Amino acid sequence: MILLRTTDPDFAVRFDALVDDRRESAADVGRDVAAIIDRVRREGEAAVADYTARFDRHDPFETGWSIPPEECERAFDALDPGLRQALELASTRIRAYHDRQRPADTAYTDDAGVRLGARWRPVDAAGLYVPGGRAAYPSSLLMNAIPAAVAGVERLAMVTPTPNGRVNPLVLAAAHVCGITEIWRVGGAQGVAALAYGAGPIRPVDVVTGPGNAWVAEAKRQLYGVVGIDMVAGPSEIVVVADAQNDPDWIAADLLSQAEHDTVTQSILFTDDQAFAEAVAASVDAQLGELATEPVARVAWETNGAMVVVERLEDAIPLCDRLAPEHLQLAVDDPQPLFERVRHAGSVFLGRHTPEAIGDYVAGPNHVLPTGRRARFASGLSVLDFMKRTSFLQLDETSLRELGPATVALAQAEGLPAHAKSVALRLRLNR
Amino acid sequence: MILLRTTDPDFAVRFDALVDDRRESAADVGRDVAAIIDRVRREGEAAVADYTARFDRHDPFETGWSIPPEECERAFDALDPGLRQALELASTRIRAYHDRQRPADTAYTDDAGVRLGARWRPVDAAGLYVPGGRAAYPSSLLMNAIPAAVAGVERLAMVTPTPNGRVNPLVLAAAHVCGITEIWRVGGAQGVAALAYGAGPIRPVDVVTGPGNAWVAEAKRQLYGVVGIDMVAGPSEIVVVADAQNDPDWIAADLLSQAEHDTVTQSILFTDDQAFAEAVAASVDAQLGELATEPVARVAWETNGAMVVVERLEDAIPLCDRLAPEHLQLAVDDPQPLFERVRHAGSVFLGRHTPEAIGDYVAGPNHVLPTGRRARFASGLSVLDFMKRTSFLQLDETSLRELGPATVALAQAEGLPAHAKSVALRLRLNR
Repeated sequence: MILLRTTDPDFAVRFDALVDDRRESAADVGRDVAAIIDRVRREGEAAVADYTARFDRHDPFETGWSIPPEECERAFDALDPGLRQALELASTRIRAYHDRQRPADTAYTDDAGVRLGARWRPVDAAGLYVPGGRAAYPSSLLMNAIPAAVAGVERLAMVTPTPNGRVNPLVLAAAHVCGITEIWRVGGAQGVAALAYGAGPIRPVDVVTGPGNAWVAEAKRQLYGVVGIDMVAGPSEIVVVADAQNDPDWIAADLLSQAEHDTVTQSILFTDDQAFAEAVAASVDAQLGELATEPVARVAWETNGAMVVVERLEDAIPLCDRLAPEHLQLAVDDPQPLFERVRHAGSVFLGRHTPEAIGDYVAGPNHVLPTGRRARFASGLSVLDFMKRTSFLQLDETSLRELGPATVALAQAEGLPAHAKSVALRLRLNR
Repeated sequence: MILLRTTDPDFAVRFDALVDDRRESAADVGRDVAAIIDRVRREGEAAVADYTARFDRHDPFETGWSIPPEECERAFDALDPGLRQALELASTRIRAYHDRQRPADTAYTDDAGVRLGARWRPVDAAGLYVPGGRAAYPSSLLMNAIPAAVAGVERLAMVTPTPNGRVNPLVLAAAHVCGITEIWRVGGAQGVAALAYGAGPIRPVDVVTGPGNAWVAEAKRQLYGVVGIDMVAGPSEIVVVADAQNDPDWIAADLLSQAEHDTVTQSILFTDDQAFAEAVAASVDAQLGELATEPVARVAWETNGAMVVVERLEDAIPLCDRLAPEHLQLAVDDPQPLFERVRHAGSVFLGRHTPEAIGDYVAGPNHVLPTGRRARFASGLSVLDFMKRTSFLQLDETSLRELGPATVALAQAEGLPAHAKSVALRLRLNR
């Protein structure tokens, strides 16, 4: 953890370093992933089965390619009732939030008599990647599947690795809550490639979303264009802006809730009171010892954690904008004035009673958010990621007469005579 | 050109081949582009100047890095008045169409007392790539710059190669119409890298859009994630659905307007009348001889052109959906019933008096559209490509008490105790 003060003479240089530190995973897996994708494209299910045997230690021709919906329903029924209710509450609230993202079609006739507009339609099929092992979060499944369902996508195909053939019952239960009925027991780059190109029983999809390890992320990056993808995801981060009126224990827990995800995640506190920062740091140390996730959280905090002491709390906002954080918590009594000045953040958590973790599960907004400073230009996952827009245009003889001559002039200037001619013929202009 | 009939015994196989033919440019430039990007990132303007000297045969340290706005104004003033008016009509209409794309913010308080919503903001800076040479289309400049301006982007930085130091006056005039004042005389992968990472006087941007050759497209693909990009663009295509009541000359000109762009573009006619198809084919042959763009258009038509004879015109729509064409023209008296069944197309041109070329220039909708079957999941360029969405969330003690327990349950089930604790502490629950 580093402590910076804006009054330090070397603050600018050290803050620049914090901003430029991208913490991308070092693994250079590009070549391996390209080889896997190429083989799945050429050999289909045989390649997928082979990689699954190698990486997940089971042969889908024997263990079965798919998990039947009944198994998901059984997993759901076997859950603790509190967890069942929690999943259902999350599902209901996430759906309600995303329902409002459905875009409106436009259609109008303008002064020139041109009828025009745009129409949104869902993609035919979406593929959802759900990791196995440590990062198998049912909440991520909800966050990916529900926007697709709200978009009206008719076919949702989920892939998930089942190492040694074992499935994660929580993931199956979440699939049941989302109504997913097509689940394939494959993962990794081969799972993503199977979704993109199709492989044996797995028919190709149009969009692939969902989190994954470095291989999965690289496969999505390489297949971007063959299919749509949600985004290039990097390590997660949280920035908390807090005054000294907060309970240091609360803020420490907020910072740790990011740190426990992965050793490369980043937690940063901005405050206008150095004594408060020190109290939070002490609480982080104390809480670390109590966490089952301590080994991960400690490395993340010690390596990437930062505290920045500013003179006035509003000074934090332009610095936050440079970080363009995935999560931004504004833990003050009246967060609105600060929020209004924020330009770049994936999601903002306002006030003292909105810990970021609430947004991870049940609040409603999506928790799939741009990382690694990408909130400068990217947005969280939404219904729009599962839809596309078709523009349209209709002219008649009169409106073509109004717009035609300008089109002919521009087409000729650009050296495209057939463009000009397609209009000139209809206007019966001298060619 | 191939002629297929849905009644042919081998139709399914031959149509599959048409759908699967991606016509991507063969040049494998990935390694070269990676080296260029890496060097620009490390060496900045020195690398950009060196590549510019090598590829464009001028040294920006001598010819000047930038083109002053006055030069653009002079270029505009020197244009033929008809062309000036055409550019201004196009600009006005494109702006009017894109004005309607501005997304609405949402903010509401739900039954649980949670305040939540989403806020759209423009990116800070957008970079526009404008090709030099043959494909230097002023219309493309308008189509890229205007959505960025409508989004409210404060800084628009344009890069364009000036081979041998020479600029294209039409491009400068279009830049003047769009109010672009920051123009850099660099192009290629080095121009895209300079926009992404910054280089000497060129400060980095957040989003890079605009067409380019294989090097430019690959640079954008590789830099996707460092910056936002519009899309991976491939060769262009048009599908025309026309009954026999059309003038074959009009439809032939429409097909040729796509073919004259590039030898890899594709023009496809669907009709329910084989004699009409043959008349169109004859007219294409006749018109080809009159075109200055014949060498390109002939290769494109002969290599990639296709005509498909269907039994009933509506049979064409599901086949079109499989092609997911960039441009779809429905040249019939009443196009609406056909249009309502279309699922996948970048832009649709309705009726007999809406040649695709009208949409390229002055109609209003964007002409930057998904190619290579990508309309299955991608949309044309829009204001949204220059904005991003920040979700937000605010709970108070009461609403946290309502949502908190479910969050604690899910966080514990996912093995994330610090997440649970950040909520439990605020609820004063037993940890």
